[in-house]
Amino acid sequence: MNDTTGEFGLIRWIVARSGTHPRVPLGPGDDTAGVLLRGDRQTLLTTDMLLEGSCFLLAEAGALRIGRKAMNVNLSDIAAMGGTPVCALVSVALPRDGGRALGEELYRGLREAGDRFDTPIAGGDTNTWDGGLTISVALVGESSDLGPIRRDGASAGEWIFVTGSFGGSILGRHLDFTPRLAEAAELVRDFHPRSMIDVSDGLSADLWHICEASALGAIVDTDAIPISDDARTLAARTGRTPLDHALSDGEDFELVFTLTPDEGRRMVERASLAGTPVTKIGEMTASTRYHLRRADGTLEVLEPKGYSHPMS
Amino acid sequence: MNDTTGEFGLIRWIVARSGTHPRVPLGPGDDTAGVLLRGDRQTLLTTDMLLEGSCFLLAEAGALRIGRKAMNVNLSDIAAMGGTPVCALVSVALPRDGGRALGEELYRGLREAGDRFDTPIAGGDTNTWDGGLTISVALVGESSDLGPIRRDGASAGEWIFVTGSFGGSILGRHLDFTPRLAEAAELVRDFHPRSMIDVSDGLSADLWHICEASALGAIVDTDAIPISDDARTLAARTGRTPLDHALSDGEDFELVFTLTPDEGRRMVERASLAGTPVTKIGEMTASTRYHLRRADGTLEVLEPKGYSHPMS
Repeated sequence: MNDTTGEFGLIRWIVARSGTHPRVPLGPGDDTAGVLLRGDRQTLLTTDMLLEGSCFLLAEAGALRIGRKAMNVNLSDIAAMGGTPVCALVSVALPRDGGRALGEELYRGLREAGDRFDTPIAGGDTNTWDGGLTISVALVGESSDLGPIRRDGASAGEWIFVTGSFGGSILGRHLDFTPRLAEAAELVRDFHPRSMIDVSDGLSADLWHICEASALGAIVDTDAIPISDDARTLAARTGRTPLDHALSDGEDFELVFTLTPDEGRRMVERASLAGTPVTKIGEMTASTRYHLRRADGTLEVLEPKGYSHPMS
Repeated sequence: MNDTTGEFGLIRWIVARSGTHPRVPLGPGDDTAGVLLRGDRQTLLTTDMLLEGSCFLLAEAGALRIGRKAMNVNLSDIAAMGGTPVCALVSVALPRDGGRALGEELYRGLREAGDRFDTPIAGGDTNTWDGGLTISVALVGESSDLGPIRRDGASAGEWIFVTGSFGGSILGRHLDFTPRLAEAAELVRDFHPRSMIDVSDGLSADLWHICEASALGAIVDTDAIPISDDARTLAARTGRTPLDHALSDGEDFELVFTLTPDEGRRMVERASLAGTPVTKIGEMTASTRYHLRRADGTLEVLEPKGYSHPMS
């Protein structure tokens, strides 16, 4: 059991690369990790699982990018609460054949993404099997002074803002995005967002999550939606409109948040957070209707389209 | 997206069954959970993944027992640190066909195990794919006044104790065990264990983890090892000895811990924790040798045998 092969070999390899961190007095290698958290803040907990074939194609993406994405999707969830990440747990199911090399490459990607935001890997679980590569990351963070920025905090009349631009993430951004932690930190420092979410399912689907949770509707201005170059490129291939791609593609990992009109005016003037463009795209409404507003003022029903795992 | 089918249908079903908990002001349904933890204790974090075909046979075990086990193996890790569980995150990969019924049954098992130790499910991630059933639980706990009871805290001369009995867990106990949280709580209340681990890989392998981490060896008294009835039943089938099964089968989820001789004498007198028998099985030694001691005093090398995920 002292050898460097098998499950324990990979664990030894990982433990040897785990530095010390002031927040993690006990890192990988024991039954649990030991972590120092503040008692005066809410602890934020989130988990996301990525699955070969369903969430990614290993041959296409490569293990390093998969590892990076697995960490970044969770960091994006912490950003969506206006929080700061503290540390991560990682469990993986690797193929028996070639699992060691794959495990090391995944770990490099996880660390690259985590290190960028001072988020060490505090522990994990390493398995092998005959099935597809599976990676599950659980992330621990802390809320800001404002507490967790939830989906259900919006009020009618608030202005809706987004970071960045939308659509066509499948062309590469869905693997190589930067979680909007710096933007969220600046936002909660200088404003009081009333509700927030990150866009994983799709802009129209995720804004609808805020509407549902807050028991409100929304009007989104068609011309205001920031459409990415990728959405235009993809639209040229698919025959759908760039707007349609922007509203429904998903995996943009941008932030959607609401502000009171007073704070909203200040945000419109500033127009960016941490160097990333911020755009007002509409308003929350007391009716629970969900509408797109064309430039001429006409309204049409907005369908909250986005990805949902099929199941029966 | 308001329907009750697919991923979101199952999430709605789960959210509807999630009660409130004083430690979890924000439960399932947002980007992250919000949890209240004490700032004066180390937070314990652990994760374990169970895989269909590799860790369990779904048809044989049933989803309810798999859910229960997925929670209990993590609770056992918190017990092994002398800690108290607080809440769990659960991510699952379900088959597309029949995933809903399976997901509900898994959830019932997870809740049954969690509720027994006042451990709510604070959040999770639900996916479907063509691969095998995969479930990953991350557990958050808090250490006791003593701090985390680590593997590397043992000293030469300390006495080695175990809860319960060992071997043959494959006959059923590996699915239907009770994590030793009550025993661990009584232990850290009345004693100061210097090192501790739970037995998942196998008694000889897991005690060896303490030896390695503490840079020590151990002598284990053959006649002292509590052998389970299951080990005897299995031995009658396999032709191996009950002792061999007790030392190497694994998944007993009992505790192994060390005490100073002074505290050890007190433990020998008490002979149980929370109603579970506790047995002295040997002593830690300054040499890094690992030995079994027969009744006549002769020593033989003890091989740290147990399960390790194969990988190349």
